[in-house]
Amino acid sequence: MLIPAVVDIAARNADWQAFALSSLATGLIGLLMSVAFGGALEEGLNTRQTFILTTLSWVSLPVFGALPFLWLGIGYTDAVFEAVSGFTTTGSTVLSGLDGLPPGLLLWRSLMQWMGGVGIIVMAIVLLPFLRIGGMQLFQTESSDRSEKIVARSVELIRLIGISYLFLSSCCVVAYWATGMSPFDALNHALTTIATGGYSTHDVSFAYFTNPATGWFAVLFMIIGALPFVLIIQGLRGKPMMLWRDPQVRAFMGLVVVVSLGVAFYLGITHRVPLDDALLMSTFNIVSVVTGTGYAYGDYTSWGAPMVALALLLKFVGGCTGSTTGGIKIFRFLVFFGTVRAHLRRMVRPNRIMSEEYGSSRLTSELSFSVLAFLVCYLGTVGILTLALAAFDLDLVTALSAAATAVGNVGPGLGPTIGPAGSFAPLPDGAKWILCFAMLIGRLEIFTVIVLFDPEFWSR
Amino acid sequence: MLIPAVVDIAARNADWQAFALSSLATGLIGLLMSVAFGGALEEGLNTRQTFILTTLSWVSLPVFGALPFLWLGIGYTDAVFEAVSGFTTTGSTVLSGLDGLPPGLLLWRSLMQWMGGVGIIVMAIVLLPFLRIGGMQLFQTESSDRSEKIVARSVELIRLIGISYLFLSSCCVVAYWATGMSPFDALNHALTTIATGGYSTHDVSFAYFTNPATGWFAVLFMIIGALPFVLIIQGLRGKPMMLWRDPQVRAFMGLVVVVSLGVAFYLGITHRVPLDDALLMSTFNIVSVVTGTGYAYGDYTSWGAPMVALALLLKFVGGCTGSTTGGIKIFRFLVFFGTVRAHLRRMVRPNRIMSEEYGSSRLTSELSFSVLAFLVCYLGTVGILTLALAAFDLDLVTALSAAATAVGNVGPGLGPTIGPAGSFAPLPDGAKWILCFAMLIGRLEIFTVIVLFDPEFWSR
Ligand SMILES: [K+]
Ligand SMILES: [K+]
Repeated sequence: MLIPAVVDIAARNADWQAFALSSLATGLIGLLMSVAFGGALEEGLNTRQTFILTTLSWVSLPVFGALPFLWLGIGYTDAVFEAVSGFTTTGSTVLSGLDGLPPGLLLWRSLMQWMGGVGIIVMAIVLLPFLRIGGMQLFQTESSDRSEKIVARSVELIRLIGISYLFLSSCCVVAYWATGMSPFDALNHALTTIATGGYSTHDVSFAYFTNPATGWFAVLFMIIGALPFVLIIQGLRGKPMMLWRDPQVRAFMGLVVVVSLGVAFYLGITHRVPLDDALLMSTFNIVSVVTGTGYAYGDYTSWGAPMVALALLLKFVGGCTGSTTGGIKIFRFLVFFGTVRAHLRRMVRPNRIMSEEYGSSRLTSELSFSVLAFLVCYLGTVGILTLALAAFDLDLVTALSAAATAVGNVGPGLGPTIGPAGSFAPLPDGAKWILCFAMLIGRLEIFTVIVLFDPEFWSR
Repeated sequence: MLIPAVVDIAARNADWQAFALSSLATGLIGLLMSVAFGGALEEGLNTRQTFILTTLSWVSLPVFGALPFLWLGIGYTDAVFEAVSGFTTTGSTVLSGLDGLPPGLLLWRSLMQWMGGVGIIVMAIVLLPFLRIGGMQLFQTESSDRSEKIVARSVELIRLIGISYLFLSSCCVVAYWATGMSPFDALNHALTTIATGGYSTHDVSFAYFTNPATGWFAVLFMIIGALPFVLIIQGLRGKPMMLWRDPQVRAFMGLVVVVSLGVAFYLGITHRVPLDDALLMSTFNIVSVVTGTGYAYGDYTSWGAPMVALALLLKFVGGCTGSTTGGIKIFRFLVFFGTVRAHLRRMVRPNRIMSEEYGSSRLTSELSFSVLAFLVCYLGTVGILTLALAAFDLDLVTALSAAATAVGNVGPGLGPTIGPAGSFAPLPDGAKWILCFAMLIGRLEIFTVIVLFDPEFWSR
């Protein structure tokens, strides 16, 4: 928070006080918490404590992240919404007139997403596989284990993640700057691209930048933000083939290429857009939705009914595990297809023995079950949240797309209010609090939060 | 088909020729098929053949059922749509001006649903548990077995189902007639109530009948149509307590009562409807949607955004297994809640051993998996069909609600075109064929059809 304060001082903006005071409050409470926290960590956490602390830390971060927004006079609900949307890298915004906001505040929005992004990667690699959340035990590595030697290795891994993340963000800044963005815009958008966050410094979002090269760089870095970060690290260390051998990466890239090409041809034919424009507009927006970045590059919901339905479905997909993306995530679809096909074949030929595989590892029935349970809970959560939002008199398209976009940490919704060209500001306060909950439950992969609602969790 | 022919002759309507000719064609081909079929049955079917024949018989019935509609000059697509919607007891219609149609044709629509209804009950009790479709192995009884003595017992069971079905339908006719319907209306609506089909003889559907007693009888018989038929037979034989002890029945009745009361209060407060009116309107429409009957009793989509979202979600629910209803069905929700709760508790306390139960029987992990796989495939099917319908330029609400209503065999959709006050006639032909497929795949509990798309199913 001190960084945006300095920026605002440099820009002679009185808002620096906001950041200074917020920093002070945050620093004090953070100090207290880390002392308490650190003591617990040294003794080692049991599973239940890990669940509680994981959720607690994601809930408390936005409480402090919201403080600087209060100086805009937007009310506490909106401030918290903007901060939750920031740290969870969702990118739904209640602010408009972005182009005229103090630069410190804009930078703070981008930084929240950037920090949230790296937090998610660390959580997905070090923590969730150990908690066995929705099939993530598939990605258990030594670093998910808990012996003493391993803690040291975790620290080393986190350090590596941090350095690579910083390196890729810097590359993105340079790429944006070199293709015509102002340094400030390049920095902000790089922070929110690599985090697949989607906050922009302009109301028209990415459409502000007309150079096609900028658009294609954004596509590249959104995709990087959606790939498994451990494999990206391997790639940076000179083993790029490991990326390509990963089943998630193949499926993800295949999906993106096929759908983008399809939509580009659709645009070219029905809207008579020149093919190179169509290709960029299609690829950019498809990648933006699938990776859950949420930048708008023209209002794709005006391309016709098929695109609206496609955008809704793609909000559920997400990227690869261990990336900054939200959503269901590719590996769960792969496990789902594999196990259900085997299940159906067993139905037809009950005596045949079949084994289900993911990449080179065999799937246990516990893992398949875990993934299926996750899928149902994910879709069920979106359904129930849709109903909860509709109770605030939101129409069906708004309620459903808001629920899907929040749980998937995508950003924009559908319909005239919260679509890619709109804002979440007009929603009633109650709906905003529901969406805050939705963004957090999505970010924490549903199960991490649901278990806390089971009375038995708290017994003994 | 000869019955409607006689009715039309009696009403001096030239349409009797339609039925006579249709009957002749159907009779001839039916004779050929049953000869071929009967031979196969005597030798006993293996699992694969059962899958094929089950699907085949549901696909071929509407082909013949469509014939009488051709005389209306509505085109083959519309005729098939109406027949598929009939036999699957969906009840979506492309016809309007129902009040002026030949009585024989109206009766044919009702008869299709009535025959479809009893066909579904037989299929769900005798066939599907044996095929282990989406957890239905839970309902395996001796009659699902295949030894010779058992075939005789199946025949006895089917006879019992037939008699009880006829008896309940007759009760419904009498109840409707006694509360003011014309004999013709009473007959038609009784046939489509007990089958939770929803075809009416009036464009305004059930709103034509203003006597509240008629409405409450409809509620009663729709609920009967949604209960497990085997238990209803037990009830008719003097053991009504078996119904009440069934976990499905309890959950279903609980859901209906709670939601109906909630909506009634909502209506009373927000629309200032007198409480007795509100209670009937709410209960009728909730029961109509949950059981997938699909009668309209006033346009409930005009009650506000919360009701629209609620109606969409309830389209997925369905009634009990072994009834005439479609949808996901109550027992799968119960299995889902039970197994996922146990799964989450195992996540928190990995060393605890937990057993999952449904009623008094313990759930195997294969069964839980089966149910979860069904849930995901069901929701995924609705998602993919939504996209397919949107490709025909249907807006999101129309496409999504059409997919949900067709797969769930409910009947009306949402939105201005296909809502409870609308008709499916304006949809493009392609969309109608997709919906025919959707109604069949829903009726056959998804898996029965999906397995046929696996190339390995057809190998060797
Ligand atoms: K996002
Ligand atoms: K129906």
